[in-house]
Amino acid sequence: MEYRFAKRVDHLKPSVIREILKFTGMPGIVPFAAGNPAPEAFPTEEVEKISAKIFSNTPVDALQYSISEGDPGLRETMRGFMRNRLHAFREFDDLIITAGAQQVMELTVKALCDEGDTLICETPSFIGSLNAFRSYNLNLVGVELESDGISIEKLEQALKSNQNVKIIYLIPNFQNPSGITLSAEKRKAVYALAKRYGVIILEDNPYGETRFAGEDIPPIKSLDEDGIVVYAGSFSKVLSPGLRVGYAVAPKEILAKLTVCKQVSDVHTNIWAQKICNAFLTECDYDAHIEKIKGVYRRKAGMMMELMDTYLAPKIPYNPVQGGLFIWARLPDGVDMLEFCREAVQRKVAVVPGSAFLSDEAAPCQNIRLNFSTPTDEQMTEGMEILGKMAEKI
Amino acid sequence: MEYRFAKRVDHLKPSVIREILKFTGMPGIVPFAAGNPAPEAFPTEEVEKISAKIFSNTPVDALQYSISEGDPGLRETMRGFMRNRLHAFREFDDLIITAGAQQVMELTVKALCDEGDTLICETPSFIGSLNAFRSYNLNLVGVELESDGISIEKLEQALKSNQNVKIIYLIPNFQNPSGITLSAEKRKAVYALAKRYGVIILEDNPYGETRFAGEDIPPIKSLDEDGIVVYAGSFSKVLSPGLRVGYAVAPKEILAKLTVCKQVSDVHTNIWAQKICNAFLTECDYDAHIEKIKGVYRRKAGMMMELMDTYLAPKIPYNPVQGGLFIWARLPDGVDMLEFCREAVQRKVAVVPGSAFLSDEAAPCQNIRLNFSTPTDEQMTEGMEILGKMAEKI
Repeated sequence: MEYRFAKRVDHLKPSVIREILKFTGMPGIVPFAAGNPAPEAFPTEEVEKISAKIFSNTPVDALQYSISEGDPGLRETMRGFMRNRLHAFREFDDLIITAGAQQVMELTVKALCDEGDTLICETPSFIGSLNAFRSYNLNLVGVELESDGISIEKLEQALKSNQNVKIIYLIPNFQNPSGITLSAEKRKAVYALAKRYGVIILEDNPYGETRFAGEDIPPIKSLDEDGIVVYAGSFSKVLSPGLRVGYAVAPKEILAKLTVCKQVSDVHTNIWAQKICNAFLTECDYDAHIEKIKGVYRRKAGMMMELMDTYLAPKIPYNPVQGGLFIWARLPDGVDMLEFCREAVQRKVAVVPGSAFLSDEAAPCQNIRLNFSTPTDEQMTEGMEILGKMAEKI
Repeated sequence: MEYRFAKRVDHLKPSVIREILKFTGMPGIVPFAAGNPAPEAFPTEEVEKISAKIFSNTPVDALQYSISEGDPGLRETMRGFMRNRLHAFREFDDLIITAGAQQVMELTVKALCDEGDTLICETPSFIGSLNAFRSYNLNLVGVELESDGISIEKLEQALKSNQNVKIIYLIPNFQNPSGITLSAEKRKAVYALAKRYGVIILEDNPYGETRFAGEDIPPIKSLDEDGIVVYAGSFSKVLSPGLRVGYAVAPKEILAKLTVCKQVSDVHTNIWAQKICNAFLTECDYDAHIEKIKGVYRRKAGMMMELMDTYLAPKIPYNPVQGGLFIWARLPDGVDMLEFCREAVQRKVAVVPGSAFLSDEAAPCQNIRLNFSTPTDEQMTEGMEILGKMAEKI
């Protein structure tokens, strides 16, 4: 039978990252293309203890159906977290638990955007989110990044020149893939523009808690006096990505629609995982754990940048990072970027071609994305030596 | 700000069931409106042991990112299950793991149906699936159920008289809410019609393994020589619904699109839960567990039907059941069904108004759905006495 697929998925392919990840898993490959948090950052002993306690105290609660909005205990804990730690939870807001932050992106566009509506994003941006938006046939408009975040001038042009702009999607902290952080001034400017043009901001903040250098900047959601920001948070980088637990904070009216969309998608998020997250936040020393994670990433990022200075500078410059998991490097003009990535894989180093992250994948791109959380120290050194030899020839 | 939502969700409300479940949770209410598996059917000790083993042997694997298709071990186990136990897995098929069977419905319509396309379903049918279909703005066409399943004559009429029919959605075993099982003859007839009209069958089988009386009937998927059946399976009724683990079996070309849609929805299903399911199937005595579950439901359903014979017959007849979790009863003509449900809740017995399950919720309906898996024996007796008193007056 010749299958007829929906127009919305006809153009969707498995992401380039996922395809390259197949190489990442092959023995002997240096995994600069990966995006896994460092295993040494997982609190495995604490999770083991919490899990044992759940099963000895309330096993049925962890295995029974629950409500779509999420575990009441975890919701209350995260409301407090957003209110007291990020100052980003107002009277009109509420919080629901999702299957990772990825689900927040999907539910938000499903609830807010008709096919053909415009979504403005940074370009480059996270391919998983871009594909979620593409899967609803949106008009994806990418706005250029500067060293302090999205270009405000070009954002306003995009708001002026596009029909039915519904959402501005941003990753303000240690953006994936660029590593860039949106400055406090620009956060205010983006908020003011969104308010003026009546557009919702979708703020994706998976990396905020990983800042290992510099000063925290309050999230855009903390400015949200008008109820125009949907905030996506995640346990993937601070606790474990395999749990698939994230959350959305948004005005109640928007959350009601997201909840209906979640109900028809997966009923609710795995309840054991929600209870693990809640107990971890309320019964363990979360701050000490975050300090430990920061230490792990400070060291790994530092080592990676030193190696890049040694082996790749000045030919292949990069954006220095203060958090997140990725470094965005730039090949010299005239070098065939895709060919460079292919040769790297042949030499057993997997990197992600930067074009994978563009709103228009066919646009010219000289960048590659390198991950520093997954490779071991030995892999990092080995991989950089190989890339260094390739750099010598370009 | 006045929010503008997508047309596809403008008409969606939280399901009537979910609203009524709020009463179910109130103290002192008899939960005939619920749909929870019986807690005594959960293998809590086995899950506790498996979980402890996972954390002592391979904690990082259970917490790290994984692939969208699902845990390779569980996929292989379930391929064998489908091949050897249900004879419903061919060369052209493959299997992916989902966040419960509910996600199979959502992914399938997202991948196969444009807005306005027609989906034919039984009416009544499972409200969670109907709402998933509604959330993609499909033309939902309900076909009447007979005592041996969907009316073949009316199904053919629906196939003839509707444009762009993409999917026939069926729950062949112990259908929710009617309890009706599709006969072997009709399964062949439905398959032949789908083949003739070039339509995909979406076979939802959450209750197949719970048959506590009568003979198993092979799934429609076992007839699928032409690659036109998407099969949805679930661990919710045989192991635990809180895990949120289900699976889809379908031709590889279709699964590739479902996988892309899953990737942008939640990346992958909670990996610990997948490992629990796999270990439960491969290391525990699954057959003995299924026999135990059948025993639990045989007894509870038997008790429920006896009580209905005692207190409600002959005024309120019902479809006798051989599996599943629900009994579909019918109030006499002339009785206001919604008013009956409201009065029952006031008298502390929650039942679900049958109209919640219709493809057209405004169509006339005299039915109510009663769940026998959630209430305790005492609640069952108490609830039926109350409904019996109400029946006396009608």
